[in-house]
Amino acid sequence: MAQKSTKERFVEVFPTLLQDVLDLLPPTLPAEAKQWIKECMEYNIPGGKMNRGLSVIDTLKALLRRELTEDEFFKAAVLGWSVEWLQAFFLVADDIMDQSPVRRGQPCWYKLEKVGLVAINDSFILESCIYKLFKKYFRQEKYYIDLVELLHETSWQTELGQVVDLITAPEDDINLDRFSLERHSWIVTYKTAYYSFYLPVAMGMLVAGITDPAVFKQAEDILIPLGEHFQIHDDYIDCYEPPEVIGKIGTDIEDNKCSWLINQALKLCTPEQRKLLDENYGRKNPSNVAVVKGIYNELDLKGVYKRHEDAAYNKLTELVSQVDDQVIPREVFTSFIYKIFKR
Amino acid sequence: MAQKSTKERFVEVFPTLLQDVLDLLPPTLPAEAKQWIKECMEYNIPGGKMNRGLSVIDTLKALLRRELTEDEFFKAAVLGWSVEWLQAFFLVADDIMDQSPVRRGQPCWYKLEKVGLVAINDSFILESCIYKLFKKYFRQEKYYIDLVELLHETSWQTELGQVVDLITAPEDDINLDRFSLERHSWIVTYKTAYYSFYLPVAMGMLVAGITDPAVFKQAEDILIPLGEHFQIHDDYIDCYEPPEVIGKIGTDIEDNKCSWLINQALKLCTPEQRKLLDENYGRKNPSNVAVVKGIYNELDLKGVYKRHEDAAYNKLTELVSQVDDQVIPREVFTSFIYKIFKR
Repeated sequence: MAQKSTKERFVEVFPTLLQDVLDLLPPTLPAEAKQWIKECMEYNIPGGKMNRGLSVIDTLKALLRRELTEDEFFKAAVLGWSVEWLQAFFLVADDIMDQSPVRRGQPCWYKLEKVGLVAINDSFILESCIYKLFKKYFRQEKYYIDLVELLHETSWQTELGQVVDLITAPEDDINLDRFSLERHSWIVTYKTAYYSFYLPVAMGMLVAGITDPAVFKQAEDILIPLGEHFQIHDDYIDCYEPPEVIGKIGTDIEDNKCSWLINQALKLCTPEQRKLLDENYGRKNPSNVAVVKGIYNELDLKGVYKRHEDAAYNKLTELVSQVDDQVIPREVFTSFIYKIFKR
Repeated sequence: MAQKSTKERFVEVFPTLLQDVLDLLPPTLPAEAKQWIKECMEYNIPGGKMNRGLSVIDTLKALLRRELTEDEFFKAAVLGWSVEWLQAFFLVADDIMDQSPVRRGQPCWYKLEKVGLVAINDSFILESCIYKLFKKYFRQEKYYIDLVELLHETSWQTELGQVVDLITAPEDDINLDRFSLERHSWIVTYKTAYYSFYLPVAMGMLVAGITDPAVFKQAEDILIPLGEHFQIHDDYIDCYEPPEVIGKIGTDIEDNKCSWLINQALKLCTPEQRKLLDENYGRKNPSNVAVVKGIYNELDLKGVYKRHEDAAYNKLTELVSQVDDQVIPREVFTSFIYKIFKR
């Protein structure tokens, strides 16, 4: 019998946690509401790539430098799923704020006829589930309060990233003066990097018994630029990779997104190109998009990206080489670098 | 010089907490975002009656059976304001879900032109502030984790109350079969009573050093029916008191609300009256509303309410009389009863 992969074992934990949440509902809760919450979780939590959730398991394994016991695996999987739960909380709400139609190949939750704006409260419930699961599985651990505070802090950071993004690049009020590479870096750090990269690793570190704040700080100092590059790559492929590869049609230009590409363009462009960018960015019309893409090509943003990618790779491998492997196994970081840079 | 009232002293704490939150923002946060968060807090948190916040102070004073020290007063005020922060989190979101135009005499936050659906993320930020304040002021207290868990639990309960309310009485899908007095009781208990009545008292109990779960349970067993009656009274005045008294124009009938009155009417009505309720409840037209109010009068809901109020008063005073005043001073509860029943 073939051994199960980490991913298969991780996926198998989800039904248990779903049932845990349902069991923790008040027994008097009307059956329709219980059914509603069940559907909301099933619709919004699984179905992603689960990289964030799996990172907790990989991190713990790397930190302990051995295979995990059943109990360790399960604990890491609960935390991994809690990251997926957190992401569902944010995505359900982000999709409403962005008025997005589709997520992971299905209509966004709020787009379902019976749901609508009730989805706002559903996003709150998704968030609350995390603390229910923490209480059930980690109440007795020494790091329980640190775990709860970590989640509070990460939620706060992500929310701050989201507010800066929303006021920098509102879809219906185009003003490229608000954009800059510094602003882009701030947004992606707070909106994406903390919850996607720092959070899963910090969770693994807590379970492994690490308590020294300096060690968490060192991990953060590597994982945040790593997460930043991950998002820059994401911005890049939105424009330069075909839909078959990225699984959706890139619309960052149409949607007035504060993408790394437009910020690079704004930095490098001539006054004439800037005028064209002002007139064409953030408009839905394909001819406007074509003008913007034309300027991107004139500025060789593909080449700019490739050089940036090389520099990011070199910087990150340099940072990792400075890590004392006795304190944190470099493997914790190299596995991310390998995945993101695909080399 | 006249001594300041508790309310005046409570109000004076707000600017300190607002500044605390602003000081806890990342120093690199763009200035517009800091300004945005400041405006959001100033717009949504003060301006209510602050009964919930003040209850924490009153409770602590009653529990300690003496005037509070400066430090005790401040701690209770921080917790009181955190209830107001929690309420702001819920109300900002509820107003979007209910598509309400006005709150406390001003346009709802999401109705401001520059805000819109960004208000969803703002509601998340309001929630997160609470944990920031807890960490700043209560990290060193023995009851810190209990306080955090109390907030998690109360948020969860309120969210469950909200989802049951939303699926029971969606504004655009009228079906009185879903209504019942039991359902009404469930909704008001979870959506209102826990956070408005149990939470402030439980906070005061934590600060007073109470740890016995049985004591918290006894408080809950009084405060939940008390909160339930508070909401029944609120439902009653929505229909029977003039706008000058309640500070808004009651529209529960138009809005298909699962109010105590319609549930009493459904219980007491004849088949003919039921048919008229089905045809007229939840419609915006004044003639429909008049039909419903006519049936309420035929069923003498005013008298039904008065009898219910008397019974609730008797039940609650009976429950309070069973409290061992050495364990919890009855004053904790009688002050609420006095305020709610105004006698």
